[in-house]
Amino acid sequence: MAMQRIEPGELPTRAEVLAKLFSKWSAPVRTERVRTEDALYRILAADVFSLCDKPVFRGSRMDGVAVDSERFKDGVPDASEWKLGTDYVRADTGDDFDDAFDAVIAVEDLEFLPNGGLKFNDDLEPVTEGAEIANRGDSIARDMLLCEKGTRLLAVDLAAIAMGAVSEIEVYKKPIAAFIPTGSELIPLGQLPKRGETVCSNSILAKCMLEEMGAVGLTFDPVADNPKELSATLDKALSDADIVILSAGTSKGSEDYCHTLLAERGELIFHGVASAPGRPMAGAIVDGKPVINVAGPPTACFNGLEWCVKAVVSKFCEQNPLKRHTVLATLSGDIHSGGVGFESFVRLKLEKTDSGYVAHPMPHRATRTPDSIRAEGLYITKLEPEAQSKGDVIEVELLR
Amino acid sequence: MAMQRIEPGELPTRAEVLAKLFSKWSAPVRTERVRTEDALYRILAADVFSLCDKPVFRGSRMDGVAVDSERFKDGVPDASEWKLGTDYVRADTGDDFDDAFDAVIAVEDLEFLPNGGLKFNDDLEPVTEGAEIANRGDSIARDMLLCEKGTRLLAVDLAAIAMGAVSEIEVYKKPIAAFIPTGSELIPLGQLPKRGETVCSNSILAKCMLEEMGAVGLTFDPVADNPKELSATLDKALSDADIVILSAGTSKGSEDYCHTLLAERGELIFHGVASAPGRPMAGAIVDGKPVINVAGPPTACFNGLEWCVKAVVSKFCEQNPLKRHTVLATLSGDIHSGGVGFESFVRLKLEKTDSGYVAHPMPHRATRTPDSIRAEGLYITKLEPEAQSKGDVIEVELLR
Repeated sequence: MAMQRIEPGELPTRAEVLAKLFSKWSAPVRTERVRTEDALYRILAADVFSLCDKPVFRGSRMDGVAVDSERFKDGVPDASEWKLGTDYVRADTGDDFDDAFDAVIAVEDLEFLPNGGLKFNDDLEPVTEGAEIANRGDSIARDMLLCEKGTRLLAVDLAAIAMGAVSEIEVYKKPIAAFIPTGSELIPLGQLPKRGETVCSNSILAKCMLEEMGAVGLTFDPVADNPKELSATLDKALSDADIVILSAGTSKGSEDYCHTLLAERGELIFHGVASAPGRPMAGAIVDGKPVINVAGPPTACFNGLEWCVKAVVSKFCEQNPLKRHTVLATLSGDIHSGGVGFESFVRLKLEKTDSGYVAHPMPHRATRTPDSIRAEGLYITKLEPEAQSKGDVIEVELLR
Repeated sequence: MAMQRIEPGELPTRAEVLAKLFSKWSAPVRTERVRTEDALYRILAADVFSLCDKPVFRGSRMDGVAVDSERFKDGVPDASEWKLGTDYVRADTGDDFDDAFDAVIAVEDLEFLPNGGLKFNDDLEPVTEGAEIANRGDSIARDMLLCEKGTRLLAVDLAAIAMGAVSEIEVYKKPIAAFIPTGSELIPLGQLPKRGETVCSNSILAKCMLEEMGAVGLTFDPVADNPKELSATLDKALSDADIVILSAGTSKGSEDYCHTLLAERGELIFHGVASAPGRPMAGAIVDGKPVINVAGPPTACFNGLEWCVKAVVSKFCEQNPLKRHTVLATLSGDIHSGGVGFESFVRLKLEKTDSGYVAHPMPHRATRTPDSIRAEGLYITKLEPEAQSKGDVIEVELLR
């Protein structure tokens, strides 16, 4: 049997792959109630509205004393014999106070006398009813929208939600993503590799990238290139997880266990994508769940997780994948186009200079070195052939 | 007693406060060994070097077959009767193979015949010793530096470390930061506030911001404005934590329990900073530990955590605080200078338009609304008076 030669231009683009995948599969939307304080980085599944007014009734706008404005209507009174609790009370920022008082004067505008009386500054502004007092709901009105559905919750969002006395919120459940590394040469991290062995570094890459994208990573021990064992592991993964990721075995001649297995077990959605490293990726729906087969080299595995798995994970939260920050950078070398209808994920070292960022392209072939996986930047060439030359300014996605 | 009036220009700047604090206090540097897979977002405390070569001996650069190059020295041989295991073996990417073979031919360059023999393509390039074979250490040499001390570990760093078979690494211990909200009006999240009560939202803000900055937040229930109770809580916090943060009570006339307590209990480093919101902050060294008193309004609390506590936390990892990403944005309104020697933290709403970002300044006074705490951007005015007007382009720190 001859190996199939697929010309780059015949392969579907990433966008086409995702469109097909999402036309055949919809993520089950599942939510759960969690305590607000436990919700950092979760995605809000419903708008959150305030349960209270703030102030609940009223509150001082400053650190000061609360007084009866009536006593100021003819000018600044002599308060040298005033008594705390009777003629005035302390009203610090946010404090409410007895209804006998209706205005606040800042501490900066007065002196506290040793006998408990007060001396107001000569330049005191007229004191009128309600002066320096925040009224019910001035900061937050009950039922006011505090945070919108779909927000990835940061500390400041949770603080805003807490201001409205909301102690439990509805968030999307994190999907569970199983990661199955395949390859007879792989050994788990924790042993020293002998001749012919390679430490499986994709598992830790996937587990941590999945955590960053809001999923729970469930990593399996490496599976040898053995269709039966792989099939049994796939069964286990499909029963434990919402998404299954197979690593490697995508283009092997001897044979492509993974994509062959996917075609047998479910509906193969794609095999091959117009994007490299990672071109021989595959994806299928098996038992109603997405199974993505990423390529084995570390940077190819990264790419498959980055564009494909992240999009799948995001669907569980009804989101589009979070975009990375970008910077403009000047190329220190040429970038070659992937060709017509084909794109390259170019990894870059970024250097900050006085005149801005300089981007050093890494060799396309370096898919397995610590340096290449740790690149600071990413540039994806366009599907229309483009020439990017030394000195050109490009927009670089920040990976760090 | 008159309230002390401090002119803005007399207050120390943030840089002066930190310089004084760090001249009086040094963070204890403590490290711990953790499993590589558990080290996401931790800070590496020592350079990590590879424990192995990769390949350990050699490995195929592609999916193909390994052959003896000797048989190709007179051109492409007739391989139609070759036997798997004797005349050739499968050698997929990364695979090592028997020493009888010394070159790899890609699957794309041959056909597998039904009898087990091979047919090489007519346009096969000359096959020489070592062709398409990666040698010992080509990707990683043993003892090669995989990751530098001080790196905030991302998925890709951990993958690089795993490639070198390093399963345990030395990271800085996370400091424990106690957060004590003070104020008789405060109630913990979980109850509906009644008249005169305010939900303590600073606790959740601090807990989550501390987590983001790499500390463990230990939050205390709100403490009433009562010096004895506050002192007892401070004792507890000092015994449980490496850093103590007091919230509010910074400028209260009735009285400033917090900073008074700090001056009694330890060495007061500062009281007041040339920066707002949050100007009446204070800081001290008590029992050899930094105690930072942030102001009570939510945005003031945020600012104190952002510039001061973050700098303190970073010292425990021998780091400078992580800088936020910035974007250029056009102002939709004027920003007022804080005055000579005084700066303002201006919170901004960011709007993405076709012609770039537009920054809408939020009212300086809005220190307590959900909107202000949830701002997308931050701009800090310069200590030299500056005018930033509608239409000006400013560099905005991204808060989201």
